[in-house]
Amino acid sequence: MRLRAGLLFASDSRTNAGVDHIATFRKMNIFEVPGERLVTLLNAGNLATTQSVVSLLRQRASGGGRHLLNLPSMYDVAELVGRTVKEVVARDSDGGGQLNQGVDFGANFIVGGQIRGEAPRLFHVYPQGNFIEATEDTPYLQIGESKYGKPIIDRVIDFDSSLTEATKCALISFDSTIRSNLSVGLPLDMLLYRTDSFAPARPHRVTAEDPYFNRLRQGWGGGLKRVFEQLPDDDWFLPDQIGG
Amino acid sequence: MRLRAGLLFASDSRTNAGVDHIATFRKMNIFEVPGERLVTLLNAGNLATTQSVVSLLRQRASGGGRHLLNLPSMYDVAELVGRTVKEVVARDSDGGGQLNQGVDFGANFIVGGQIRGEAPRLFHVYPQGNFIEATEDTPYLQIGESKYGKPIIDRVIDFDSSLTEATKCALISFDSTIRSNLSVGLPLDMLLYRTDSFAPARPHRVTAEDPYFNRLRQGWGGGLKRVFEQLPDDDWFLPDQIGG
Repeated sequence: MRLRAGLLFASDSRTNAGVDHIATFRKMNIFEVPGERLVTLLNAGNLATTQSVVSLLRQRASGGGRHLLNLPSMYDVAELVGRTVKEVVARDSDGGGQLNQGVDFGANFIVGGQIRGEAPRLFHVYPQGNFIEATEDTPYLQIGESKYGKPIIDRVIDFDSSLTEATKCALISFDSTIRSNLSVGLPLDMLLYRTDSFAPARPHRVTAEDPYFNRLRQGWGGGLKRVFEQLPDDDWFLPDQIGG
Repeated sequence: MRLRAGLLFASDSRTNAGVDHIATFRKMNIFEVPGERLVTLLNAGNLATTQSVVSLLRQRASGGGRHLLNLPSMYDVAELVGRTVKEVVARDSDGGGQLNQGVDFGANFIVGGQIRGEAPRLFHVYPQGNFIEATEDTPYLQIGESKYGKPIIDRVIDFDSSLTEATKCALISFDSTIRSNLSVGLPLDMLLYRTDSFAPARPHRVTAEDPYFNRLRQGWGGGLKRVFEQLPDDDWFLPDQIGG
């Protein structure tokens, strides 16, 4: 989410190659120069592709030339991530046809952060390497299993929401998704960034044993049930109207 | 939904062939012999396929042989719907390749009802013609844009829920989906059936102007926001922890 107050990044850590091959991998990667820039990548899709993209970006960031730690704008950063995705997909799918056995090499990235001289910016980089940017009208972007958790974000978040509200909304959005879909799972990686702070990143990991997260889930689940029980009825579905 | 108390069917009425070609079509079709059987079909997918399947089933139900109004069990009904889906898809996609221009002729059906001598039953018939049946463990089935509205059903519905609860849950599940996805839209068609009643079907249509539905949406949306505002905070995301 890119709000007036700052940026919120949230990612789960479940990967799967079929339901009998489930593993935990961090999907959040941070590149930073405290005082000057923070760049955060979230990824979804083919794990071989996302790991290669991040490895190449990190390896090159310690060399010469243009890289994530010296590019002059977040736009250039998004463009570099897109170019690297295309490079890896082209390399891994080279050979094509039979050899690829119908594997989808694609990956999506959320790329966000702030570079001194610019406001915070947030992008969604597609498997094709092109990208879109979040705006005040649409202040959040999702990748991966995004549908289950979208309605609650649509209901409570806008550009003027606080980072505290954004964090709680992201946590209950993930909770709904985790309950409904096996391919999303704990732990969650969370990172908050306040606009113009350029402070060192302090990511926070939320595990299944996290007492606060469990209190939040119970508060939300219980609250939903209370609201549901208090909803009004209409005549047409009262018991005496349904087949006597 | 197939509950101990009875069956609830709910469908939206939006169809689209791209966002610039949106129309309203009823997706609920009822076949009944009051006092003896109720069979309800909900459909999703290719509109030409679903209309043809329903037309053929209805046309044949007024002729001789085995059809929806005289088959001895709901299992046989689901099997007939599956066979008819396969027949229509085979007919329409005959020619293949270039001629089909990549069109997906597939369609999914929910088929439910009660035939005297059996308990109420509920099936999901796939585009391939095979089908699964709802059980006490999994008392509801969804087709079409199902993900947005799934979390609330998972949270509040089980086999012992009342038909009144089921109706309100289905309405707010659709409300969440409608807010998050353009391909789902009002009006909604609702049908309730009480176990062993064999009463004449009285479907109810919920339009955008329905005063009860608007009260329900407001009650749910407002209640969610109140619950959200009362959720507890944790130290790590309080303002003084995020980059000062």
